[in-house]
Amino acid sequence: MQYSEGQVGRVFSVRIDDGEDFIREIERFVAAMNIQSGMVHFLGAVRNATLVTGPKDAVIPPAPRAEEIFGGWELLGFATIYPGVEGPSLHIHSAAGKGIRSLTGCLREKAEVYLVIEAVVMEFVGISARRLPDEATGVNLPVFDRVLP
Amino acid sequence: MQYSEGQVGRVFSVRIDDGEDFIREIERFVAAMNIQSGMVHFLGAVRNATLVTGPKDAVIPPAPRAEEIFGGWELLGFATIYPGVEGPSLHIHSAAGKGIRSLTGCLREKAEVYLVIEAVVMEFVGISARRLPDEATGVNLPVFDRVLP
Amino acid sequence: MQYSEGQVGRVFSVRIDDGEDFIREIERFVAAMNIQSGMVHFLGAVRNATLVTGPKDAVIPPAPRAEEIFGGWELLGFATIYPGVEGPSLHIHSAAGKGIRSLTGCLREKAEVYLVIEAVVMEFVGISARRLPDEATGVNLPVFDRVLP
Repeated sequence: MQYSEGQVGRVFSVRIDDGEDFIREIERFVAAMNIQSGMVHFLGAVRNATLVTGPKDAVIPPAPRAEEIFGGWELLGFATIYPGVEGPSLHIHSAAGKGIRSLTGCLREKAEVYLVIEAVVMEFVGISARRLPDEATGVNLPVFDRVLP
Repeated sequence: MQYSEGQVGRVFSVRIDDGEDFIREIERFVAAMNIQSGMVHFLGAVRNATLVTGPKDAVIPPAPRAEEIFGGWELLGFATIYPGVEGPSLHIHSAAGKGIRSLTGCLREKAEVYLVIEAVVMEFVGISARRLPDEATGVNLPVFDRVLP
Repeated sequence: MQYSEGQVGRVFSVRIDDGEDFIREIERFVAAMNIQSGMVHFLGAVRNATLVTGPKDAVIPPAPRAEEIFGGWELLGFATIYPGVEGPSLHIHSAAGKGIRSLTGCLREKAEVYLVIEAVVMEFVGISARRLPDEATGVNLPVFDRVLP
């Protein structure tokens, strides 16, 4: 179990507006504020988005399967932020609901805001981390400076 | 993209008990502790609640559609707190599950606790915010003091 | 409404790897870091897990019903940490998604990681709490030092 220890730094309340791409905007915000490590909590709605909702089978490397959602879905989500190969890297999971349907998965590519998404971005200071491609699993994994054996 | 910058203030661990209305109680708690801005994370269960689960169509202004849930549903949720027109205003989203069913949406009106809801209320200090009715969208939106162009 | 007031202490970024038991590992981490009270946010996936997804009926004491999930499910979750009878006690809720299916409930027993689970563990200091068996409800409840009448 790899880990790193730090403290909470700055906290940002953010509003992403109707028609904007939540993923692009929150990544742009994190870069603009020069946040190295942290987390994001968010709620709101999207007009359309792509959610990776688990593999066909639990094999390595994964063969991700995506669901496209459209027409106004409510979101509840959480993301981690660590330095990636090219600037900050976010890993974003969300539950999404419309009527009696609900999905849970990894938000990817584009998520067009419906009405508003409210996000809270919390910076961590003192964390030593990088998110890097991992050969064993075929996905990007955070690499931390400490190990609990 | 509007935003505001602050720091974390006080943290409260809160327990809302069986039969109480989670929404009324958490709003009462936030007001009693004089919390202006912050966020809430919660888990637990409800006997019954109302979830707004997306619009019929993604139009502006929205025509919200609600699902009533009853009989014991597990919750996982997140809320933002900003000063509203009449005291603190909470925007609460939750995933709710019962058996193989799951919903995700905006918790409204009343949510009667089953057994317990455990909440963590985190205050933000230094945030400049108000939640106000927005004419363009027809919903209440947080208004912050800074803009990232 | 019972509650306690504290501040945020240390923050830990944690990575739990493929094949490990998320519940066992996160409990082991919290104990190893000597965290008394706090919260955990996590995202990732599991090969298989058990989710308690609400009672058959909303009676006291509850007769929990569990769903077994397997084959690679995406997770989004939150947990509270308080001192239990035997070391730290975690109450973990999660939304879980695979394809168009989604569940929300209480993660119990064992949750075998698929690829990775990323967790953020936030310590609270100054909180006075214990999680103890509660006779009235038949479940374990956090007991705090203050009451808002």
